[in-house]
Amino acid sequence: MKPSIPKGTRDFSPTEVANRTYIMNAIKTAFETYGFQPIETPSFENSDTLMGKYGEEGDRLIFKILNSGDYLSKADDTLIKEKDSLKLTSQISEKALRYDLTVPFARYVVQHQNEITFPFKRYQIQPVWRADRPQKGRFREFFQCDADVVGSKSLWQEVEFIQLYDTVFSKLGLQQTTIKINNRKILSGIAEVIGAQDKLIDFTVALDKLDKIGQEKVEAEMISKGITEEAIQKVQPLFSFTGSNLDKLESLKNMLQTSEEGLQGVQELRFVISSIAELGLQSANLEIDVTLARGLNYYTGAIFEVAAPKGVKMGSIGGGGRYDDLTGIFGMKDVSGVGISFGLDRIYLVLEELGLFKTVALPKPKVLFVNFGDAEGLYCMKAITQLRANNIKSELYPDNAKMKKQMTYANNREIEFVVIAGSNEMNNEEFTLKNMISGEQSNCSLQELIQKLK
Amino acid sequence: MKPSIPKGTRDFSPTEVANRTYIMNAIKTAFETYGFQPIETPSFENSDTLMGKYGEEGDRLIFKILNSGDYLSKADDTLIKEKDSLKLTSQISEKALRYDLTVPFARYVVQHQNEITFPFKRYQIQPVWRADRPQKGRFREFFQCDADVVGSKSLWQEVEFIQLYDTVFSKLGLQQTTIKINNRKILSGIAEVIGAQDKLIDFTVALDKLDKIGQEKVEAEMISKGITEEAIQKVQPLFSFTGSNLDKLESLKNMLQTSEEGLQGVQELRFVISSIAELGLQSANLEIDVTLARGLNYYTGAIFEVAAPKGVKMGSIGGGGRYDDLTGIFGMKDVSGVGISFGLDRIYLVLEELGLFKTVALPKPKVLFVNFGDAEGLYCMKAITQLRANNIKSELYPDNAKMKKQMTYANNREIEFVVIAGSNEMNNEEFTLKNMISGEQSNCSLQELIQKLK
Repeated sequence: MKPSIPKGTRDFSPTEVANRTYIMNAIKTAFETYGFQPIETPSFENSDTLMGKYGEEGDRLIFKILNSGDYLSKADDTLIKEKDSLKLTSQISEKALRYDLTVPFARYVVQHQNEITFPFKRYQIQPVWRADRPQKGRFREFFQCDADVVGSKSLWQEVEFIQLYDTVFSKLGLQQTTIKINNRKILSGIAEVIGAQDKLIDFTVALDKLDKIGQEKVEAEMISKGITEEAIQKVQPLFSFTGSNLDKLESLKNMLQTSEEGLQGVQELRFVISSIAELGLQSANLEIDVTLARGLNYYTGAIFEVAAPKGVKMGSIGGGGRYDDLTGIFGMKDVSGVGISFGLDRIYLVLEELGLFKTVALPKPKVLFVNFGDAEGLYCMKAITQLRANNIKSELYPDNAKMKKQMTYANNREIEFVVIAGSNEMNNEEFTLKNMISGEQSNCSLQELIQKLK
Repeated sequence: MKPSIPKGTRDFSPTEVANRTYIMNAIKTAFETYGFQPIETPSFENSDTLMGKYGEEGDRLIFKILNSGDYLSKADDTLIKEKDSLKLTSQISEKALRYDLTVPFARYVVQHQNEITFPFKRYQIQPVWRADRPQKGRFREFFQCDADVVGSKSLWQEVEFIQLYDTVFSKLGLQQTTIKINNRKILSGIAEVIGAQDKLIDFTVALDKLDKIGQEKVEAEMISKGITEEAIQKVQPLFSFTGSNLDKLESLKNMLQTSEEGLQGVQELRFVISSIAELGLQSANLEIDVTLARGLNYYTGAIFEVAAPKGVKMGSIGGGGRYDDLTGIFGMKDVSGVGISFGLDRIYLVLEELGLFKTVALPKPKVLFVNFGDAEGLYCMKAITQLRANNIKSELYPDNAKMKKQMTYANNREIEFVVIAGSNEMNNEEFTLKNMISGEQSNCSLQELIQKLK
């Protein structure tokens, strides 16, 4: 009979809300400092806005909302009789919960194109929902914090997004994150060199295991996937891909000489890398990673992914990239976009593991007034009204309960100060202020009380 | 082919988000100053948590989420064949979107009772969803901002909620709101006096028309509803219910002498009214309104409703009350609760109508750097990096576009300052700062730039 919540969802306690707000405010402040503007879109969209945009897997994971009223009345009798859930869905459900913030953003840009000044720098911090199997760091309701620019192909934006990651993670005290960067055009170049676009994922997946299983086993895996010995020879530099980012760029340039697109990718990457080298980063590392192939379906230029500091076991805590045709799905062609996302829930888990929430102020009163009855209560409420007008978080214990009970309440909520005001204090127009940590007590006037607690 | 969003939902532009955030921050700050702590609950709950809690009408307006996968496979064949939408719903949908914040809060309290320190003062600012017919000020997705206390019957809480309304509306510059207050026990007393509980709503609805249609027609309506002449005689004071709140209390006391419960209500109301008289309000009016009967099904003590300033046509912008058995629906008995809600979307419309958003800072950069190419861009990005480190919102125009285009962008976004830095400025290690409002231009070093824009 004990009530529960759906799996993959969470209640957030006051402490958890405070910690989450702390992260979100750091991200929000940085977004605005970088010139991004907030928008918000509805939690549910028309199904045809979302369906077909995330692949078959995505379509399955989108939460659909049942039509209101007699939803079966207009549905096809044959589908009903055959219990064809898949085909019936579009007939009994026309709305669906947001699956990410990118597609609703594209829809927003197209719908509001006449009100928008391009290039449009927007940010959006809202929950999304996925009917995924829950596990550590993966939930059915979670927040995304996205910043995107549409309407410009300038690589300064890639530079800026790297700085933005560095700014936010430095602000949160998260040192030594690694911002991995790749470029879709380099991946295309590698595909050209190994002789097959369709082997690219097999190739990067195998190469990614180099540290763990060694060159011999990686090559064996590649061969088993149908990549030729000759192709592997041509990309030998990737098996000893070390040194500075500039060294890596040099090595890529040599390797990809036969691919125009690959060389274009190297040039783009060089602009970003050398600009960041000039501008400097506060605490993050920037690292070229040619195995980074996330979002290969839609990214057309830069690809980003952020790894938590070494030693923390957690998937990526952020990612993004450039997509040359974001709004094409809604009929507005040739609008280039680039954006990044912060994974709030994973960042939370990382900060928690590293003990980085210590400085977060919990939303609790600074002072509790003990309640001795109606007359004393009114005397206290007059003082509390003044304290609150001075933005001092304060409250009266609501009931004239036993002193011990009231003090236990103050202790449980870790309230720093308690005010005791009985008939003596009322006669002298003063208050007894007790520091709950040191135990120290002193008498003071209302003005002194305000000064001490401010 | 132009994309759209579901009816009753809205996109929020950067300006709208800024205005909404302004209201939410005022409410949030006041909640915390009064000692309330934030919690958050999932957007969807198990259906059995919500269904049956809001009456038949409510059940109909709750948005249901379709089960994932082959949802029809386990459904009852007879219901499917008969196309019985109503009965099939619980078989193909086990989750539903939050309809308000009160029931999820009750569920939260029961589920987490062992972690909570009582009395528990919580606030919650989250969207809710209702499949209602959209109209002005009524949406299918809207935010509620609730503060509640559970675990104490103290009337100081009613006093505090009135102060809280006054604090928030004063902070928002919304003068002369009217906080209407009633008490369920007074309504019960009136029901006793008129001789029938089931005539109470007919009675208050008719009485509410007194100003508009006059005493004669109100009495005629009451008689047509089956209220006797004799009963109407007994409540004559309500037909000339004027004067101060204390006058009204005196009149109610005389009228309800035969009803123990009614007198209890008068006493409770007197405590609240006289405490507020002692403590004072900044800008709101507090007014006893015996026709106030909202939420009659669940309120057991005080009933609140806030009306916008006279002259603004808008339904209530807030409401609340006391419910003696909030958590009983989830098996935890005898926990009294009292709470209020702020109607964010309606408050928005009122502030907009009264022109009270003037002071809200829009999220836009303070300064735009004109882009003259890669070398100049890097020179500017170095300065921008310093400005941002000093929390100055700034950005580089991403492309080396024509000057006119870049200046138009600055004008369209109403950016106050523009920095121009070409080869001359680079050679002199300075910047040309232009005030876009006055047209004034001056040359300055990076340090001077930071000082001027800070």
